[in-house]
This record gives sequence, C-alpha cells and structure tokens, in this order.
Amino acid sequence: VPEFELIERIRARVGARPDVILGIGDDGALLRAPAGQALVAAMDALVSGVHFPADTPPADIGWKALAVNLSDLAAMGAEPAWALLSLTLPEEDGDWLDAFLDGFMRLADAHRLALVGGDTTRGPLALCVQVLGFVPPGAALRRQGARPGDRLWVTGTLGDAAAGLARWGTVALDDPLVARLLRPTPRIEAGLALRGQAHAAIDVSDGLLADLGHLCTASGVGAELVAARLPASAALAGYPTDQRLAWQLGGGDDYELLFALPEGVDAGELLPPGLDATAIGRIIGEPGVHVLDGEGHQLAVARAGYQHFGAADG
Amino acid sequence: VPEFELIERIRARVGARPDVILGIGDDGALLRAPAGQALVAAMDALVSGVHFPADTPPADIGWKALAVNLSDLAAMGAEPAWALLSLTLPEEDGDWLDAFLDGFMRLADAHRLALVGGDTTRGPLALCVQVLGFVPPGAALRRQGARPGDRLWVTGTLGDAAAGLARWGTVALDDPLVARLLRPTPRIEAGLALRGQAHAAIDVSDGLLADLGHLCTASGVGAELVAARLPASAALAGYPTDQRLAWQLGGGDDYELLFALPEGVDAGELLPPGLDATAIGRIIGEPGVHVLDGEGHQLAVARAGYQHFGAADG
Repeated sequence: VPEFELIERIRARVGARPDVILGIGDDGALLRAPAGQALVAAMDALVSGVHFPADTPPADIGWKALAVNLSDLAAMGAEPAWALLSLTLPEEDGDWLDAFLDGFMRLADAHRLALVGGDTTRGPLALCVQVLGFVPPGAALRRQGARPGDRLWVTGTLGDAAAGLARWGTVALDDPLVARLLRPTPRIEAGLALRGQAHAAIDVSDGLLADLGHLCTASGVGAELVAARLPASAALAGYPTDQRLAWQLGGGDDYELLFALPEGVDAGELLPPGLDATAIGRIIGEPGVHVLDGEGHQLAVARAGYQHFGAADG
Repeated sequence: VPEFELIERIRARVGARPDVILGIGDDGALLRAPAGQALVAAMDALVSGVHFPADTPPADIGWKALAVNLSDLAAMGAEPAWALLSLTLPEEDGDWLDAFLDGFMRLADAHRLALVGGDTTRGPLALCVQVLGFVPPGAALRRQGARPGDRLWVTGTLGDAAAGLARWGTVALDDPLVARLLRPTPRIEAGLALRGQAHAAIDVSDGLLADLGHLCTASGVGAELVAARLPASAALAGYPTDQRLAWQLGGGDDYELLFALPEGVDAGELLPPGLDATAIGRIIGEPGVHVLDGEGHQLAVARAGYQHFGAADG
C-alpha cells in the first residue's frame, strides 16, 4: 500500500487526549503540558535480530516497542501521556502495520497514551519510540538516592524473559516464559505508588546485576543480594538452581522495577493490589554488588550480566 | 570502545539549559516546560543509504540528523529546546561518534538546544532524533489555514540539494550544491518571525510540488506556481532550464520554508536580515497544484515529486 495509506492507518488509531492540540498530520505535534509538573522524556530503539528475534509476530513487536519505553517512565515514577513512533520497514506492508498497531495501541490504550507523531522510513526493520510523561518535579524516582541500610525490592518475578529467549523456537508463543519475553508489563502503577517513598529506582532491562550496578554507581553505594530470595515464576521454578540464577541475575528484558526503600517500609503496603514485590537484599556503604547464599556467604557470580550495546539512558 | 564510554562521550557534550532538571544518565530526562506555551514534538529517522549516501562523513550525518528535525520545528514556528538521539551503529566506533557529535552539537549549540537522552544500539547504521520546542498555542504555524488569494513564498533557494545528490561522488564535498545536501539550514528564525503572520507553512523536505500539495490538501485549497520565479542559487543557475526546474519542483532535502501570506504583506519585511524570501505563486480556491510559464500558461509537469517512503509527520 502507498505510504500515505500507511500513515492514514496509523492516524485512524492514535487514541485521543484532551491535551493533544494537534496530533499526526502536520510538521510537528502540538501538546499542552500540565502546569506544575516536570516532563519526563525517554527514547528507545528496537532493531530486528538485536532486541527481538526476526520472526517475532508484529503485534508483539508493537507491544514491546512501547513497553520498554513505558518501563523507563515507570522507573521515573511518571504518568505516561504521549508517544512518537518511527517505523523503518523493509516494505510498505499494510497487514504487518495493522498487526503491529494492534499490539502497540493495546498497550497505549491501557495507559491512556496518545500516539502524536513520528515517521515511516524504508530500511531494515527497526523501530524507535519516544515517550513523554509527567511527574511532580520533586517526586521523580531516580537512580541516585539509595542509602546504606535501605532494603532492595523488586516487583514481579525475574529471569522469565531470558528463559523465554533460550526456549525461543522450541515452544509455542503462548509458552508462559516466551510470553514474558514478548509482552513485558511496564510497572507504571508501581512507579506512581513509589513516588515520595523509594529512595532510588531503576527498571530491570539489562539484567538484575547490571541494573543494580547502575543504581549503586549513581547512588555512590553498594548492595548485597540474597540469591534464595530472588522471585521466580512457577514456570521458571522447575529449572536447576544454577541455570535459574544465571537468568535471574544476568538476563535482561524483565522490565520489573528494582527500588530501594527505607528499612521498615513494606513495599507490599505501597503497591497496588495484585502486584507483588519481594525484598531481595540491602544497600551497603561499600561499593560493589555481592550475591549471598542462605548462610550469608558470597556466591561466585560473574558480575557482568551481558554488556549490552543498547542500553543508554533517557 | 565499550558502550559506557560511548555514552560518556555523549554526556560530555550535551549542552546546558536551565530547564533541564536531569539529562542523560537516568531512565528518563526531567524537563521543565515553560508555562503558557504549547510543546511542539517532532521525530525523524535517517537510514544510511536511504536518507544519506553511505559514504557521507559522520559530522555531516550528525548535522543533517538534527537539521531535518529542527526544520520541522521551524515549520511550526517553534523555538527549539531539547533533543533525544537514538544511534544504531554497526560497531562501537569512538572516532565515528566524536565526528558525528561534532556536526550534531555544532547545530545544537547554534540553537541553544540540549541533548537530554536517547540510546545506543548495535545494528545497521541509522539514527532517530526527537526534538521538542515551544510555541504560544495560538501562534503555531500549521499546514492548514491558507486562503485563496494568499501569496506563496519560499525562503532561500530551491533544488540545490537534489542537484548535489546528482553530483554526489563526482565532485568534492565542499562543492556548493553538495554542501547544501549535506548541511541544510533549518529556518528556525524565519519560523519565529512568521508567527501570527503566515496563514500556513510547511518545510520543503519531499520537494516543492509534494510539500505544496500537503499544504493545499490540509488547507482545502489549490495553488499556482510561476516557474520562472522559483529561486535558484548561482551554482544551480548554470544548468539547463528543464533540469533545473525538475530539481526545484521535485527534488527533496532543501528544508526551506514554504508559506502563505495575505496579499500585500511582504515577506522580506518580516524575515530576519540576511534571509531572502521569494514570492513564487498564489493560493487558489480550486484544488490542485499548477505550474505556469511566464505567460500564465500551464506547464506540463509531472505532479508527484518523488513518492517518498519516509516523510510522515510529527
């Protein structure tokens, strides 16, 4: 189908918000930011074969392209508002676009987010999404601010996405681990609930050790994790401990929130009903991230997670 | 060089603005939007081999990636403020990045724009830039609003970039036509000066006929252009008329502003010193875009420009 029809198919589904003065269809979008709030801006690109297997269904690509960006807003404690989408497609495939939009807009609609601009380009399959949201300026969650003695918490479960990637191609797409890889849940409501409570927060996109390392570096602190406390899904629990731990500590793409709370504050009382959080360790003054066994002895764990060429900030 | 060093090289050069509460280095940027102004958001991706020749110097790619986005802000009458940058690179090449940033930040600094976020990814060379700016809500320039009887004006000269692309590889990079292709000038100051004056505006990115078509469609009008009035640079003037006209009418990448002013208003008195504008035609009530020779007869000109898979909006 011709390009203008691709754009019309997008325009027909963008979602409405009263703060969108002018959406897709001009040289830029006109948006009304709320008074007294800071804007939060993040942008993440996804490249076929790098961030998702090339044979990923387009609806799942659409979901994930937005989810990884919303996860950044969640980690800032921001309320999502608007997105821009740049689509680079090998050909003008209307069916592919419709399916992509099914996934993208399903997640957008769930968060009352409007798609307000972007572009389409011909080239190797890739997507770039930019999201904007709001947060009261003093209430934003940041990577810095964790203090020795804080407890470390994580939402949901860890390691599923990495296990799903390892199983990719050998099981159906509705396998629970593969489904976690394809359709991560951005923890927006958790981020909102942690405003003014968490000393620091980050989303787990590169892997627990890597992202905890970012949080500790930004805060000028270190951390101890207790391996036996890392939350695992029922689907992951059947794997041998070493394999499971490798995925939970080093695997990326979980998009859970990792955050530091003052000792004595129970995350379960802060988070919305239906979302669990688990205390997995504590912040210490000495730099470095350590993983402890049940007796408090340090496990020999490769530090890195994967050094992921693709995880900058913003 | 490792990824974190790439990001550090970017962070060291992002430019400072007092309205950036938190820039690169967290999950999102925190920005303070001015009260009483609308936000203008635009995003354009550039793919190697599609939007620029694969052997384009990295500093020119950096300049152009930002310039095409600033041109969208110019066409809205917006004042630039912030940008996010997603870089997809085949390898972690620090020298390439430094040269790219030379071009990108030279243009950013000229417009007091701060780079506040984005990401780096491995893959086929491509860039996605998102820009944010401000405009008083009622003063934004839009594609709609042109009225029959309005005069059509264009800044600068047309056709140079298309001629430069045709000459690519046969002349030096400082050839004046090639230089226009590599380093387009976003007409920010012109856009600001046209606030409250122009009935409609668009930037010439796809080619004059195509972009005038967009403006006319959005405004529900038609237009007549006078071929002999299309402004040409000295470098372009030496080409045969047919060739020159083809580039001026159909070639893209000029990034001049095309705008409609009420009859009797002289663009030259509105625009900042040093920037020329030329009256090239008028708006008519009947839909369609016509090109007239010196006697007012319609020239046989293929309508399309190029149907460019890569020119959506926002």
